[in-house]
Amino acid sequence: MTVFEQGKNAKQTLTFMSQVTTEQKNNALGIIADMLEENIEKIVSANAVDIENGRKNGLGDGLIDRLMLNADRIKAMADGARQVASLPDPCGRLLSEYKKDNGLDIKKITVPLGVIGIIFEARPNVTVDAAALCLKSGNAVILRGGKEAINSNTALADIMREALAKAGFPQDVIQLVGDTSRQSATDMMNMNEYLDCLIPRGGKGLIKAVVENSTVPVIETGSGNCHIYVDESADINMAANIIFNAKTQRISVCNACESLVINSKIINKALPIIAKKLKEKDVEIRGDERAQKACELVAPATDEDFATEYLDYIISVKTVDTIDEAIAHINANSTGHSEAIITENKENAEKFLKCIDSSSVYVNASTRFTDGGEFGLGAEIGISTQKLHARGPMGLEQLTSTKYLIYGDGQVR
Amino acid sequence: MTVFEQGKNAKQTLTFMSQVTTEQKNNALGIIADMLEENIEKIVSANAVDIENGRKNGLGDGLIDRLMLNADRIKAMADGARQVASLPDPCGRLLSEYKKDNGLDIKKITVPLGVIGIIFEARPNVTVDAAALCLKSGNAVILRGGKEAINSNTALADIMREALAKAGFPQDVIQLVGDTSRQSATDMMNMNEYLDCLIPRGGKGLIKAVVENSTVPVIETGSGNCHIYVDESADINMAANIIFNAKTQRISVCNACESLVINSKIINKALPIIAKKLKEKDVEIRGDERAQKACELVAPATDEDFATEYLDYIISVKTVDTIDEAIAHINANSTGHSEAIITENKENAEKFLKCIDSSSVYVNASTRFTDGGEFGLGAEIGISTQKLHARGPMGLEQLTSTKYLIYGDGQVR
Repeated sequence: MTVFEQGKNAKQTLTFMSQVTTEQKNNALGIIADMLEENIEKIVSANAVDIENGRKNGLGDGLIDRLMLNADRIKAMADGARQVASLPDPCGRLLSEYKKDNGLDIKKITVPLGVIGIIFEARPNVTVDAAALCLKSGNAVILRGGKEAINSNTALADIMREALAKAGFPQDVIQLVGDTSRQSATDMMNMNEYLDCLIPRGGKGLIKAVVENSTVPVIETGSGNCHIYVDESADINMAANIIFNAKTQRISVCNACESLVINSKIINKALPIIAKKLKEKDVEIRGDERAQKACELVAPATDEDFATEYLDYIISVKTVDTIDEAIAHINANSTGHSEAIITENKENAEKFLKCIDSSSVYVNASTRFTDGGEFGLGAEIGISTQKLHARGPMGLEQLTSTKYLIYGDGQVR
Repeated sequence: MTVFEQGKNAKQTLTFMSQVTTEQKNNALGIIADMLEENIEKIVSANAVDIENGRKNGLGDGLIDRLMLNADRIKAMADGARQVASLPDPCGRLLSEYKKDNGLDIKKITVPLGVIGIIFEARPNVTVDAAALCLKSGNAVILRGGKEAINSNTALADIMREALAKAGFPQDVIQLVGDTSRQSATDMMNMNEYLDCLIPRGGKGLIKAVVENSTVPVIETGSGNCHIYVDESADINMAANIIFNAKTQRISVCNACESLVINSKIINKALPIIAKKLKEKDVEIRGDERAQKACELVAPATDEDFATEYLDYIISVKTVDTIDEAIAHINANSTGHSEAIITENKENAEKFLKCIDSSSVYVNASTRFTDGGEFGLGAEIGISTQKLHARGPMGLEQLTSTKYLIYGDGQVR
């Protein structure tokens, strides 16, 4: 079957999905969870083929670990689906109501987006997580994972489709693209007739390719060149703790801190303390001239450093004389993900919150909190770094659109 | 100046715009309105050059009329800007607040989108309307109008920029692209670094080109192949009135009815009455075989007719046996704009409202009401036919994004 045929089949489920109840959706999610747990052996043995192929093809230990499924990880996926079932239904919410003098009653409600395409890389857990979120929000989903995980993904999708049938749903509400060639991804990017939105999940290269080549509306996710600004009035120990946490707690994530911006009036006192803390985990520090002068642990930085999302034990340091300079530097170099200010000055905090053009702006806290779970969304499908439709962590609500319902009794204009 | 330089200049106004108050924005809109009225002569004489060039280049009377500015039309633009000033500020609205056990206070608020690009065709009033809406929603705007209106647009933009300076705003909050070549539009479609969103306003060709070629996120507007379904239980006179209104009140608009879908159980009684009414304005009726049999005024339709937005005194007629068949036909052929059911059956009304996948779905009313003013938005920048970000009439709220503000006192993860 071609991806276009899969798109057509997905679209044909939408009339069913527009009439489905919350209970039906939750029931289907429960059956999916149960069946995943009942089929642990089957999933693990399909996954073993991917792992073996991965090893043969020279995948590194990190990638092999991301690819690997075991009983615990499968149970976690099942629990994830149950947790999504427990969240409020994002569809059918009344957003506004307007009664006109002529008697028209105009309601605006939330509705599913329709058919969502997801292009993702090695982690097979995305298959279940994304399908569960799309199902709960009333959408059909077309999942196109990477070739490394194709056997695992096929097993997971087959089980979910069987569960859908048991729950009385059309199976094509969840579809996996069997063809993992570049062409199938390209085809999805141009299925405007069948896809209402496309969400890429993975590395920079994948996201860039989708943003540049898709005519289907895209939600850009993921890349985070996150900054922490240490203001003149900062509590230096707090600054050192927060920067240490944001840089080193998990280096491979998009909300990790990549760049430190520091006020020249506090740099001589603060930077040696911050640098010493970072050296506990052997973080390489690359700074401008003033940062190098302020602390001998700082190596020279280039302009390129300030635009780099390292995802590694490296951090850049930029010295500024004012908060305005800090704001300008950050807005020019950030990816609009997460930025923080460390300050005891309320006015500066408010200015930073207002002027920094990012999805999540912090005062005196680690950027690592940018996450659907931490923000009370319950679950997330990704973190949007664009401003259209969704910004920051995206939960169920961000997988819906709206619709006007207009009740009349013969009104004409 | 290149469009890229204009984009850079627009982006540099955003720190100012993120701190601006509602009063400052309303004051600037008031000065814009006053200065438009003070400069009527100047605008009319610039417009006269466009009209003369248009006549020389063989523009038809309809296009010349759309291009033409006079004192009344300029006053209407000024009043439009004042009306936008009177609307509530869409920015800074608290959408949600989440307090975590660890003491973090997480707020989600509305913020401007940033820099909005608008590519539009002949009507110079779009210059002022769009600029006023963007300004009130805290955005910078780059307006790229058609070459037919370049003298009018330049006069209008110059006056607005002068007003911005008087109001203490950076002038580059409103910019007009002087270069009306195809290249300037193409450049805008690829200014991801400077544009947060692109809105095309105009004909099918323009919108298609932008959707297909833009890497900047687009809001698709405009095209409307709108259907009215006459259910078995319809009040036939009401149906005839509504269809007559939706088809003929203004044929050139996107919410005009282009296709009639009719239940076979009522067709013999209803279609002759509806057709007779439509013939009062000489509407050409093209139907399937059963429609032709039911009424001698009906000419044959082809499959292409059912996919056509006529924008003319023509309507297609499709016969169906059930409401489900009507829903399937409409969802397969509509552009997702506005559709209506005429029925006395509440269950069928609810089914139609649920299952029709369009921005605005009506029961017993004309599709012509799909309009920002009619829906209580106060003003509109266009009607979105996509599902991402905005759907249906877009007002000030749809020109905003969101931002998370997180207040901590040293929290780490």
